[in-house]
Amino acid sequence: MTQTLRQYSFQVFRDVPPLRQFRRQLLLDQKTVGFVPTMGALHEGHLSLIRQAAAENTDVVVSIYVNPTQFGVSEDLSSYPRTWDSDVAKLEGLNAELARQGPNTGQVTAILAPTSKVMYPTLPPSSEIDGDGSFVTITPISRRLEGASRPVFFRGVATVCMKLFNIVGADRAYFGQKDVQQTVVIKRMVKDFHVDTEIRIGDTVREQDGLAMSSRNVYLGARRRAVGLVLYTALKAAENAYTSGKVARNEILEAANAVTSKVLAEQQALTPAERALFEVDYISLADSESLDELDVVDPSRGAILSGAVKMAPLEESKAGEDCGLGDGKVPVRLIDNLIMKPRV
Amino acid sequence: MTQTLRQYSFQVFRDVPPLRQFRRQLLLDQKTVGFVPTMGALHEGHLSLIRQAAAENTDVVVSIYVNPTQFGVSEDLSSYPRTWDSDVAKLEGLNAELARQGPNTGQVTAILAPTSKVMYPTLPPSSEIDGDGSFVTITPISRRLEGASRPVFFRGVATVCMKLFNIVGADRAYFGQKDVQQTVVIKRMVKDFHVDTEIRIGDTVREQDGLAMSSRNVYLGARRRAVGLVLYTALKAAENAYTSGKVARNEILEAANAVTSKVLAEQQALTPAERALFEVDYISLADSESLDELDVVDPSRGAILSGAVKMAPLEESKAGEDCGLGDGKVPVRLIDNLIMKPRV
Repeated sequence: MTQTLRQYSFQVFRDVPPLRQFRRQLLLDQKTVGFVPTMGALHEGHLSLIRQAAAENTDVVVSIYVNPTQFGVSEDLSSYPRTWDSDVAKLEGLNAELARQGPNTGQVTAILAPTSKVMYPTLPPSSEIDGDGSFVTITPISRRLEGASRPVFFRGVATVCMKLFNIVGADRAYFGQKDVQQTVVIKRMVKDFHVDTEIRIGDTVREQDGLAMSSRNVYLGARRRAVGLVLYTALKAAENAYTSGKVARNEILEAANAVTSKVLAEQQALTPAERALFEVDYISLADSESLDELDVVDPSRGAILSGAVKMAPLEESKAGEDCGLGDGKVPVRLIDNLIMKPRV
Repeated sequence: MTQTLRQYSFQVFRDVPPLRQFRRQLLLDQKTVGFVPTMGALHEGHLSLIRQAAAENTDVVVSIYVNPTQFGVSEDLSSYPRTWDSDVAKLEGLNAELARQGPNTGQVTAILAPTSKVMYPTLPPSSEIDGDGSFVTITPISRRLEGASRPVFFRGVATVCMKLFNIVGADRAYFGQKDVQQTVVIKRMVKDFHVDTEIRIGDTVREQDGLAMSSRNVYLGARRRAVGLVLYTALKAAENAYTSGKVARNEILEAANAVTSKVLAEQQALTPAERALFEVDYISLADSESLDELDVVDPSRGAILSGAVKMAPLEESKAGEDCGLGDGKVPVRLIDNLIMKPRV
């Protein structure tokens, strides 16, 4: 399990000691390490983070590990896409691209693909909020927004990231802006625990029409894919309200709610074979560090505008319709956010 | 606050960045770092750990920080002894002793004495078990034994140690056997979170008569000091039962209980001006890793025999009596343990 698979342009590590040795040599050689933690199912968003890491470091370590402790007992751990072969192929392709950029660009030189026994060596990891184990908890921010509907999520994320940070010993670690609350929780953890790794945030990578890239998008299919854009459209409307001078919560969020209400009404008017129904989980206007909901935005501080929408399973499908992985039967929760920057 | 105080034989760090720089240079110079975390009030037990660290590393970092999150709301945080000048004097004396041992022995080269703002940079640290903050929790072992009466204790210990380990980046960290549950919790944390520091345990250092050294012993005074030996005596009686072949819980613990009952009865027969009353908090016979209570000891695994005794405040003192720091009015909780090693 700890063997190095030499057919790749990077080393693949399944256990900690050989990766430590690899990392120590990089340190002695005065190389720098950028770390991109993933759960696999790599898409353009991940590749964008890896490109950023390669631009800022000589060596990039990518971890691929579907972390059980961030899934609740009734959540989609078992159906989360696992796509090792295509992930590796994408990384090989990216390395070829990076090589063409010349000697000032780093490369992916190591993949960490640990077993759960390596990541959770003693107790089996619990997915219950009051379950036992060795955990990092970052409260109250972990209970807000995504944490409200997924109580174990950020405990799992913080826990696995602390382990991964300790294993990799990176100079910099890269997270996507798309999971904005994750970036806030991880930055807080790194600050409070004095983790010696700088956290770098990469812009959300979007499809042509604006839909944020996500590993879960493969479950959408064409019909839900089109309607799922509602979240981004709603957030953009709210952002426009802010940039046009509004600072009151109700004025900013009203712009978003007008969009989601209109799109939902349009869908409800269609037949089950034509429509894609959804439910707005939340649209939030929150402080960038505390994630406290804001009544009024302080323009000198800005804010985070974020939301989550649950795309329901398709009620009926048409012959030959592209319903996505799982034939349109998998509910898909989409999240997105926009940073309302301080006004100068 | 981040200045280096140059009048000592070691550097004193109050903040993280200069210590990181110091540590990075040691790494480049191929030096090794042993770390001894303390809450100050240094006694021979700490010095013994530092001697061990100096024997095994070129450089020893000692931290002195009274960690608020390991004290419950009604516990003795405010009365915990703070003795900076005498601590520094002891470390200077120890460095002189270590220097006399020649070039193969390391030295204390850095003291980390951080402020609480450095250790808890965002939220004020909570001492409530359900309080918010950034914490490491190691359950269920943190709820057992000491954790039963001190629910936030090991959360606080694990949290501050994770921070300190990240700050110091030591090759080895040293803990005393006296706080046996702490050693079990820290070893578990290091394993589960892949902390790249080896945990080394030093033997409990005892007074001539066997009383385990503790920073809290200064509160005992002569009368409670003498009676407080009951815990060690009881544990030794139980250990004798094990070494003489007993493996059943009741047979082993009966030997300890016989001692505590006898001593308590003797004290109760004395007048308030002569006696020192106490309460046995627990005497435990537990597995060395899980800390589960054992009905029968597996001689091939051994066990941990541990206990806690609360020395009550003196009811009456006599003129000129040595009642200890706080005039005998401070209740003192004593803990001790013996490792029942596997029988070969």
